[in-house]
Amino acid sequence: MQRAPVKGSRSGAMSHKKVLLGHGSGGKLMHELIEQIFAPELLGSCRTQLNDSALMEINGSRLAVTTDSYVVDPLFFPGGDIGKLAVNGTVNDLSMVGGRPLALTAAFILEEGFPMEDLLKIVASMKEACEMAGVNIITGDTKVVNRGKCDKSFINTTGVGIVEPGVDISADRARPGDLVLVNGDIAAHGMAILSARQELDFEVPIYSDTQPLHLLVADMLSASEQIHCLRDATRGGLASALNELAIASAVGIRIYEDQLAIQDEVKGCCEILGLDPLHVANEGKLLSIVAAEDAPTVLAAMRANTAGRQASIIGEVVEAQAQRPLVVMKTTVGGWRIVDMLAGEQLPRIC
Amino acid sequence: MQRAPVKGSRSGAMSHKKVLLGHGSGGKLMHELIEQIFAPELLGSCRTQLNDSALMEINGSRLAVTTDSYVVDPLFFPGGDIGKLAVNGTVNDLSMVGGRPLALTAAFILEEGFPMEDLLKIVASMKEACEMAGVNIITGDTKVVNRGKCDKSFINTTGVGIVEPGVDISADRARPGDLVLVNGDIAAHGMAILSARQELDFEVPIYSDTQPLHLLVADMLSASEQIHCLRDATRGGLASALNELAIASAVGIRIYEDQLAIQDEVKGCCEILGLDPLHVANEGKLLSIVAAEDAPTVLAAMRANTAGRQASIIGEVVEAQAQRPLVVMKTTVGGWRIVDMLAGEQLPRIC
Repeated sequence: MQRAPVKGSRSGAMSHKKVLLGHGSGGKLMHELIEQIFAPELLGSCRTQLNDSALMEINGSRLAVTTDSYVVDPLFFPGGDIGKLAVNGTVNDLSMVGGRPLALTAAFILEEGFPMEDLLKIVASMKEACEMAGVNIITGDTKVVNRGKCDKSFINTTGVGIVEPGVDISADRARPGDLVLVNGDIAAHGMAILSARQELDFEVPIYSDTQPLHLLVADMLSASEQIHCLRDATRGGLASALNELAIASAVGIRIYEDQLAIQDEVKGCCEILGLDPLHVANEGKLLSIVAAEDAPTVLAAMRANTAGRQASIIGEVVEAQAQRPLVVMKTTVGGWRIVDMLAGEQLPRIC
Repeated sequence: MQRAPVKGSRSGAMSHKKVLLGHGSGGKLMHELIEQIFAPELLGSCRTQLNDSALMEINGSRLAVTTDSYVVDPLFFPGGDIGKLAVNGTVNDLSMVGGRPLALTAAFILEEGFPMEDLLKIVASMKEACEMAGVNIITGDTKVVNRGKCDKSFINTTGVGIVEPGVDISADRARPGDLVLVNGDIAAHGMAILSARQELDFEVPIYSDTQPLHLLVADMLSASEQIHCLRDATRGGLASALNELAIASAVGIRIYEDQLAIQDEVKGCCEILGLDPLHVANEGKLLSIVAAEDAPTVLAAMRANTAGRQASIIGEVVEAQAQRPLVVMKTTVGGWRIVDMLAGEQLPRIC
């Protein structure tokens, strides 16, 4: 899902008369749209809006619910396809509030003339991803629009999960002194899409990192009761996710470039294209903010899971300071740089 | 949601190499697509597939879950707009398994350049529809695609409702002797869309019948424990819904044309355009199949609700007969005609 109007967000008035690509970016413009149009009219509780999934209580059980439409272009890319992404992305959003994924819905919008063979491939890939993630698709919908009225295929998945009693993970729970963990190298998904889209011919192909994170999260929750925040660093990249957490919790965050893993080919590709890897989307990477005393235990639990082999502690939470940027990074050359939320749109249709 | 592969469905092999408009029609081709591609790969229990919502059990509570993407063209039409439709349609799908709607998700796919003013109108309309239906939108998603890559705006809503113990409504529960009820006049929604789309200038404008049906269903459930089936007669119209119920329950259905209400202007418009009103979509009409002894009580309860003022008993369930059409209608001139499921696509993008 998208996240929301966070108190203290400093965006200006809704000044655009038309929807821009940036309104779907995961960055500043999208937050402005949610804050000024969707949230006041449609969305309920504030806390819900901060997180990757909403929580609802039914007869004493807490459910996590999340929705995402996938419009990725191209549909097939190294490491995955729209179907795999649609399952993993929604499973991961449920996991980010500590929800154990139970069921998904799948709604297809297809363009007239879309090859049935491609649809079969996508459906087979969704099936495989569902088996990996241990969820079922319980219901669906199909709409077909005339040729030229959509681009091949869009898929919405909505997920329902259960949150066990005692689990309380939310973007507003980061406290000064907490440590920031990431489960591996960043920016692979966005660069895989971009290289597939532009038919860039790198020597070493870049693969999307799309993977389900629910088992990693389950292991982390078993290891510690002091996991304060979890966030799936998708659209807007690690930088946007860090800023969202900092704003929601009214804290500052410092990270260290030398602790961030980036594959050489991903780094090279970002450099050639002038992109900041901190703004590039991931589809299998989570940020976790954990009480300092439990961080080593959580790190060990992460590294023991295949999805967290390369986990590291990348930074710490500090007091927010007036007039100072919320998120900063100590670079490998020794200076500090601002890590800002993505402005505008870097790569449309990344997911 | 879409319904499914019903046992005994007599469609042939998945013979199309490309997706056709008819694959989203709610009629035969869509059933073929679900039966041959989606169901075997993705969908779980067979009973789920028969109904407008899936059921899932969580810690002893039964939840109804349904998803629908709305791609209606035009976005604004007499009697409603895509936002109102997206809320009411999903509320109604929950109601069709006896689910009390609790919460919706809303996911927007917007075309770059879409007027912000129109988005505001749609969001305001969704808010109003949510208030009418007593549901909250608990989470959402926004994607923006480049100009020309989708048609203005598509909206997915997914709904979660609760089904009280004892309620057992399913398409496979119709029994010979049961009576068939409808809550009012048919075919208005489809003709409203068509007249808006073609800018047909009828003397009397035709308004969509889009309305939430959850309170009507609640009143019906209070009146009788013998409501066997409920079905929202949307895409594919009353005819497709009747056939789905007949196939799922392995019964025949006879209806009587003189019991069917159709507004004069809707009838006139259908005649001019050569459309069968039984195949035209509704967005606020339900079919109910009820044990004969309870039918008068249920009818009275329906008529006491604003959404059922014009309810009538339109037919009865009979034994299925080999080699005979499942659904037939006695016409006003006295003969019997076959009422078949919609074949191909009559009006694309009706919802």
